[in-house]
Amino acid sequence: MSQTPIITLLSDFGINDVYVGVMKGVIAQINPAITIIDLTHEIPRQNIAAARFNLMNAYPYFPDRTIHIAVVDPGVGSQRRAIALQADDGFLVGPDNGLFSGILTQSTIVFAVELTNPEFWRTPTPSQTFHGRDIFAPVGAYLASGVSLDELGSVIEPSTLVQLPIPELTTTATGITGSIQYIDHFGNLISNIPAADVRGKTWLVTVNQRQIPTGQTYSDRPLGELIALIGSHGWVEIAVNGGSAQSELQLELGNRIDVAVATEIKG
Amino acid sequence: MSQTPIITLLSDFGINDVYVGVMKGVIAQINPAITIIDLTHEIPRQNIAAARFNLMNAYPYFPDRTIHIAVVDPGVGSQRRAIALQADDGFLVGPDNGLFSGILTQSTIVFAVELTNPEFWRTPTPSQTFHGRDIFAPVGAYLASGVSLDELGSVIEPSTLVQLPIPELTTTATGITGSIQYIDHFGNLISNIPAADVRGKTWLVTVNQRQIPTGQTYSDRPLGELIALIGSHGWVEIAVNGGSAQSELQLELGNRIDVAVATEIKG
Amino acid sequence: MSQTPIITLLSDFGINDVYVGVMKGVIAQINPAITIIDLTHEIPRQNIAAARFNLMNAYPYFPDRTIHIAVVDPGVGSQRRAIALQADDGFLVGPDNGLFSGILTQSTIVFAVELTNPEFWRTPTPSQTFHGRDIFAPVGAYLASGVSLDELGSVIEPSTLVQLPIPELTTTATGITGSIQYIDHFGNLISNIPAADVRGKTWLVTVNQRQIPTGQTYSDRPLGELIALIGSHGWVEIAVNGGSAQSELQLELGNRIDVAVATEIKG
Repeated sequence: MSQTPIITLLSDFGINDVYVGVMKGVIAQINPAITIIDLTHEIPRQNIAAARFNLMNAYPYFPDRTIHIAVVDPGVGSQRRAIALQADDGFLVGPDNGLFSGILTQSTIVFAVELTNPEFWRTPTPSQTFHGRDIFAPVGAYLASGVSLDELGSVIEPSTLVQLPIPELTTTATGITGSIQYIDHFGNLISNIPAADVRGKTWLVTVNQRQIPTGQTYSDRPLGELIALIGSHGWVEIAVNGGSAQSELQLELGNRIDVAVATEIKG
Repeated sequence: MSQTPIITLLSDFGINDVYVGVMKGVIAQINPAITIIDLTHEIPRQNIAAARFNLMNAYPYFPDRTIHIAVVDPGVGSQRRAIALQADDGFLVGPDNGLFSGILTQSTIVFAVELTNPEFWRTPTPSQTFHGRDIFAPVGAYLASGVSLDELGSVIEPSTLVQLPIPELTTTATGITGSIQYIDHFGNLISNIPAADVRGKTWLVTVNQRQIPTGQTYSDRPLGELIALIGSHGWVEIAVNGGSAQSELQLELGNRIDVAVATEIKG
Repeated sequence: MSQTPIITLLSDFGINDVYVGVMKGVIAQINPAITIIDLTHEIPRQNIAAARFNLMNAYPYFPDRTIHIAVVDPGVGSQRRAIALQADDGFLVGPDNGLFSGILTQSTIVFAVELTNPEFWRTPTPSQTFHGRDIFAPVGAYLASGVSLDELGSVIEPSTLVQLPIPELTTTATGITGSIQYIDHFGNLISNIPAADVRGKTWLVTVNQRQIPTGQTYSDRPLGELIALIGSHGWVEIAVNGGSAQSELQLELGNRIDVAVATEIKG
């Protein structure tokens, strides 16, 4: 198998301007053989939580040693650190603002640096407003080309990285109370209740006093009907077969979801 | 010329989430040397007819042996078959729901299989909701890497594939009655009347009792004016020079288009 | 470092249809080893000025000999020329309508041809409406594959290329009067006043009788507050920290911006 290095890009830059294209150009100037894959550039502007969620979901599906550059960076030009991390199975490059903290719940950081060495920036005097172009893209390209992490700057303690935890679950007498952590393009409502808490059990979702039938796949229910299931992300999810649960239920990020879980009876 | 394998992707996943990025990651895990080209991911949700139209239009412009993965899949997790097809000049991978039936009007199926061999899936227990990631992307990547079609599952009869025909044309005393089969980003109205039915003849389009002047290119008419022409897709098309025929005419998919065709007088 | 040829694409085709995918297929049919990078396909329909701005901003960040294909082409099928240009550090392919005239303010044209040789088109009888597919994509692919510019058509004088200048600045008693030349995805208002006119000086922006505090980066101002700064494009720019200056100020393309520049006092 070829050793083509891969860089992924995730940002809130949108696709109307050339910001993303420019980052790709900067990478190609350093090493045109790098394969670049877009995760998404439609993270809602400056929404670190949405970036965190999407990064965490994409991360496990890439080859080992893939370099993920993420730029949702409301603090660009301020004192927030620019970082590069080596996790068990990949590298992460971007601002230290919690973007990567979802991945860190699944993966261990082996080595972490603050990007203080301008030798690997595009220019020793980067702009104050576009570190994606001037710092993160070139650093990612050098990493993909064999530069080692410790050349990029000063070592930092992984425990000092900014964390952005998702809301905690509450265990109730009858089950679990969680909330909606993400709403996707299809209007599927993705909760913060992990599949492991319900898999193999009998469970029932209630939102706004409305009970949602449980199933395994969208088409277990008639067209236009609500269903609760374990989504492909590995969380409890509410969907509408052939429609949008968001439109149907008029729910928003952070809204409450209750899951009643029956006691397992074995025998 | 290099033998780089190419995979194209078409879906209704949109670009806000990482669904498409994840499919690319899965492909790269299997073979990072594959070139991936996006056709579009903005097919209207679960609109198989729009996917069929776009696939059919893109297919002839790719190298032989390109692998087209298409995932507009309202029946995911149900009994609909997952298939891989070898056509004259390329491979098709996706659900058997009519997605590929436009291509099949132009190209012959040489070999068809149902994807029943979990050895070439991402996992033997795929999710019920994201076969793009768990079945179609890995199968496409293995095909691009030299696995032969008959290893992927059980042979099926091409005649059993689901068909999704476009509305039929009606021949009238004065010409042809068809309908709008697609509306593009520019608001161009693309009919289901093939260029061959009008090319070289004198013809005139009428919609909603309004006659549209015929021409060869948008700028044959003043800015803002309607024109009927043979579009780049090879169908009779209605456009506005520098504007949107959809906005101008307020027409929708399926609306009627009449083409009067003059008798050819030779001599 | 590898000699992978790179082609960039910029257009107003949007991402809902397969127009862009088809151009990539045509390129791959000619040479599948070419790396293709999208700049943007969301240029507002037929807006040559926006295309000019984005091309000019992206151009310096790509490797030498990159081939930039740009298709914002309201005059397709008319008498406008199809051209290929060799600049100091790259190639440009597209219609001769001013698209490239921003790049030409920064870079010198070494050689220019009109694309009159159908040998390097997809077909000797191109469509009247999609030269991106039938002329520009194949010409770019042949250029990337070693065909020399003078084979593509007849030599033209660079001085005859269509120019689309940005509005001129006015120097006033107290500074400079310019205008908004571009508004990006974040709602940042990018003026036509170059950084060089204010860098190292004391300067103050006024729009609609409202004075905007000057700073270096978004977070120099509290969340939600306006700031004027030198943007990453190298122009005077108005932004809102964590928000949209366009929404805040309700300004449009072409609206006036005044910059007062204090006399430099040295010593």
